[in-house]
Amino acid sequence: MIFQQFRHEAGSCLSYLFGCTRTGVCAVVDSQLKVEPYLKLAEKQKMKITHIFETHSQADHLSGARKLSEISGAPVYFHESVRAGMPVVKVKDGQQVRLGNVVIKVLHTPGHTPDSLCFLVSDTTRSDDPWLVLTGDTLFVGDTGRPDLEGDAGQLYDSIWGKLLTLDDIVEVYPTHYSGSVCGRSMSPKPISTIGFEKRFNPSLQVSSKQEFIEFVTANLPLQPPRFKKVREFNLGFLKEPPIEKTYDVQDLQITVEELKQRIDSGKAPFLLDVRESFEREYADIGGRLIPLGQIPKRLTELDPKQEIVVYCHHGNRSQRVVEFLYENGFTNVKNLTGGIEEWTNKIDPTVPRY
Amino acid sequence: MIFQQFRHEAGSCLSYLFGCTRTGVCAVVDSQLKVEPYLKLAEKQKMKITHIFETHSQADHLSGARKLSEISGAPVYFHESVRAGMPVVKVKDGQQVRLGNVVIKVLHTPGHTPDSLCFLVSDTTRSDDPWLVLTGDTLFVGDTGRPDLEGDAGQLYDSIWGKLLTLDDIVEVYPTHYSGSVCGRSMSPKPISTIGFEKRFNPSLQVSSKQEFIEFVTANLPLQPPRFKKVREFNLGFLKEPPIEKTYDVQDLQITVEELKQRIDSGKAPFLLDVRESFEREYADIGGRLIPLGQIPKRLTELDPKQEIVVYCHHGNRSQRVVEFLYENGFTNVKNLTGGIEEWTNKIDPTVPRY
Repeated sequence: MIFQQFRHEAGSCLSYLFGCTRTGVCAVVDSQLKVEPYLKLAEKQKMKITHIFETHSQADHLSGARKLSEISGAPVYFHESVRAGMPVVKVKDGQQVRLGNVVIKVLHTPGHTPDSLCFLVSDTTRSDDPWLVLTGDTLFVGDTGRPDLEGDAGQLYDSIWGKLLTLDDIVEVYPTHYSGSVCGRSMSPKPISTIGFEKRFNPSLQVSSKQEFIEFVTANLPLQPPRFKKVREFNLGFLKEPPIEKTYDVQDLQITVEELKQRIDSGKAPFLLDVRESFEREYADIGGRLIPLGQIPKRLTELDPKQEIVVYCHHGNRSQRVVEFLYENGFTNVKNLTGGIEEWTNKIDPTVPRY
Repeated sequence: MIFQQFRHEAGSCLSYLFGCTRTGVCAVVDSQLKVEPYLKLAEKQKMKITHIFETHSQADHLSGARKLSEISGAPVYFHESVRAGMPVVKVKDGQQVRLGNVVIKVLHTPGHTPDSLCFLVSDTTRSDDPWLVLTGDTLFVGDTGRPDLEGDAGQLYDSIWGKLLTLDDIVEVYPTHYSGSVCGRSMSPKPISTIGFEKRFNPSLQVSSKQEFIEFVTANLPLQPPRFKKVREFNLGFLKEPPIEKTYDVQDLQITVEELKQRIDSGKAPFLLDVRESFEREYADIGGRLIPLGQIPKRLTELDPKQEIVVYCHHGNRSQRVVEFLYENGFTNVKNLTGGIEEWTNKIDPTVPRY
């Protein structure tokens, strides 16, 4: 069996191509819109793409499933509960799909979305026992999927405990995102794990009850991805053209620490918004108003859309997301402090502690 | 922890870069001569390469450890038993090396070579328990290392059973080769596994005694890599320039099925050498002299170096290796049948069964 994980920095996504080298057939899972890498690998390996699987109707990034289907002729597989605006083949829990010597068992694992699937994969040249599971947005390395994009935290618990954690500990785990994605909170940058390692060390899985899990996975959620409903409509074939990714240039929404210093010195200080966690403020503080990232959506009314706002965090990543979120919600005079509070220490005020 | 596996098609090699994202330090394991991919990834991740590990003195491909050390300033780490012609830092069994939040425990696992090491890696932000082991040429996915390049099969048994198989079943396995390499016989094209999966399903590990293991791993060995002693001398710093990889152009050592047919029809048939296994000959046969690949070295005297020889197998891969081996041993009038017996069926004689 060939098995290849693809990393996509934009969105911190993962996708997969795997299949049977002896019979020359393969599948692509959670294809990105740029489908050339899959076509190229399949061609190099002299394999035909015969199946295109979607672990669920994605909301955070544009899927390439339809495009890949048009080029390769392979059908797109979704869970039977999906309502799609394009031709799809529907599969159900427990169904088996064979790709030469590779066998895929479909697991319906609702929770992140109602149509979420995991794919349990065996290489029968090694053993009929499963070797790995593609966990989509249900289980990540170090985290579990978020249940607030039309999902259900209770169902997520049932899917994980009822299906994934009953697998053998040695089964390898391959999710659809790694650290940096908006689809979870504390994913590892290492995008591979095992059921056993996650069972023991994934913080989300250390809870003692379903209720505790529900509270854990619904707390401190990251911002919802912008236009996630539109993105999902495109991915399900209801929109023919992808929704425009951004209506602004991210570069225009930046301010350097030097520019900010100059503005403050000249008496024209903008409103400073600190989106770090409160414990970080105890380490280092430059006086902005504190609203931690996770609380931004429900505390929007505390901000004035007409005022110029400069958002900062530790290194400038979280604040960048807040800037985009605010901009999309009508705060058009908003800027990200490039490099965050650390850059402020480095270039402007060395008395602000680094942490 | 960031962890990246690199695949290198030439030689079917794997190499690794991993490290601590929080402190920005990383290590490279079994660097290839082309070091740019490691430098590029480290730069992108804003990480400094501080350690260069060699799992052993490689014999099948040229190492980039010295070159990477010269560029990055990081030292090269070898087992203490190594005799090197360049500056190296020597490590011993049980020693721990810390890379920020990542801890590496050195395991001395002689057998493939006397200086073979495995590296047991923990990401302490997840757990102090090891998450993965870099197994070099000691344990592969689906196979174990070959002990005939100045190694010792008995030591290999002791290393695998005494050290690797005592690890937790959930520990991920990352070797230095995948299928197609000359360093083993039946490796999987999938280059990742777990201790538990290999313990249960790796054919080399299903033996019932040390003696049985020794017999198993010394039977049907692939051809030794050409000039492996010279390659090793370069990798250990005794040669300043890499030994020339090939003294001939592989393209010149090919013959198509159409050309072969023409030669046979015109009464100028070359000597045909079939290097498949005997069971394959029962499926399909075009009449060549059968010497399975593994027996070529000791049956060289059965071949005439002055005669024109055309070598074939199923698809043309094994025969290509035999052609190179024969050429390097003075058989300069030798050719590979491109596409193998399958191509013969496809283009010349459809009555020869496909299998």
